Amino acid sequence: MLFSPSITRLVEVFRRLPGIGPKTALRLTFFVLSQKNEEVQEMARALVEAKKRVRYCARCRNLTEDELCPVCRDERRDKTLLCVVQEPRDMMVIEKTGQFKGRYFILHGALSPVEGIGPDELMIPQLLRLIENERIEEVVIATNPNVEGDATAYYIAGAARPSGVKVTRIGFGLPVGGDLEYADELTMTRALESRREM
Amino acid sequence: MLFSPSITRLVEVFRRLPGIGPKTALRLTFFVLSQKNEEVQEMARALVEAKKRVRYCARCRNLTEDELCPVCRDERRDKTLLCVVQEPRDMMVIEKTGQFKGRYFILHGALSPVEGIGPDELMIPQLLRLIENERIEEVVIATNPNVEGDATAYYIAGAARPSGVKVTRIGFGLPVGGDLEYADELTMTRALESRREM
Repeated sequence: MLFSPSITRLVEVFRRLPGIGPKTALRLTFFVLSQKNEEVQEMARALVEAKKRVRYCARCRNLTEDELCPVCRDERRDKTLLCVVQEPRDMMVIEKTGQFKGRYFILHGALSPVEGIGPDELMIPQLLRLIENERIEEVVIATNPNVEGDATAYYIAGAARPSGVKVTRIGFGLPVGGDLEYADELTMTRALESRREM
Repeated sequence: MLFSPSITRLVEVFRRLPGIGPKTALRLTFFVLSQKNEEVQEMARALVEAKKRVRYCARCRNLTEDELCPVCRDERRDKTLLCVVQEPRDMMVIEKTGQFKGRYFILHGALSPVEGIGPDELMIPQLLRLIENERIEEVVIATNPNVEGDATAYYIAGAARPSGVKVTRIGFGLPVGGDLEYADELTMTRALESRREM
């Protein structure tokens, strides 16, 4: 043991964070210990405050401090257009394009029978009610292009169809700027499937 | 603004950490918000506690909760051998080899006139007293192989020499498992300089 318990403890706490390995955890710990007392306390406070104040938007399940999130409150949004994403960060990626004028619904996950995540855990019944009540005209499903994301997309498409809503899935294929040579087979298959007439 | 103030605040706090860019900061924030209340509070507590308890070892300036760090307290260590490193993490790297049986002195930085870091900031006078008082026989300088690290090494070597102590610098050259083809010129120059008869 090179270090004292409270240092080891802090390293462990950092290691719990996603994508933080043992070396980074140690680097972050040393950084924190080199900071001023007030700065570390501010950090701790930011953690506790955010966790205390933040909840899910009552409409779309985005993270917010209010009843409704800023996007749902925005009157300029197209209320007939709904994008379904897995995580809040996915919503951010879409917002950054500035191309989507509708609103969102955030699942906070994808269907995964192995992990016990079914439609109820993802609030899909709530999503279906929202589609009916808000008279949504198009649901754009933007779950991830992998097994869970695809399964979730198919499930939602099937469940929403009876209401007569148009259900679309975002396009998949070669990333812009990508090189054909390096495309994996699945991406290439998708790219071929989604070919369009020029 | 997609997110509420307390979320933005937490993202900012994560961004202050070294090596954490905007995307990672956001990912960490979402992760924290997905954790249980108690887990977040435990995290905050670990930060504040570590900062409160940890101080510098009175002898070597390693981080510790006690007057002396575990390495300095270890009676099996060779007390005539002293390794000088820039940061606590550098000491860890050396400890992992299991090859160094002496003790350490941690500078917490390197000489940098531009940043106003001189010998006093690195506690070099304290290091020189320690070399005299403990009758150190060899000082192994393990500062980084870059401009600041080299300048610091030369400064310490020059300042320690009058006391008659042997001063060495760790070896530089090609990393083991490395490929000659990819070595940069500076590394290659060092490798040539430190060639040995076979």
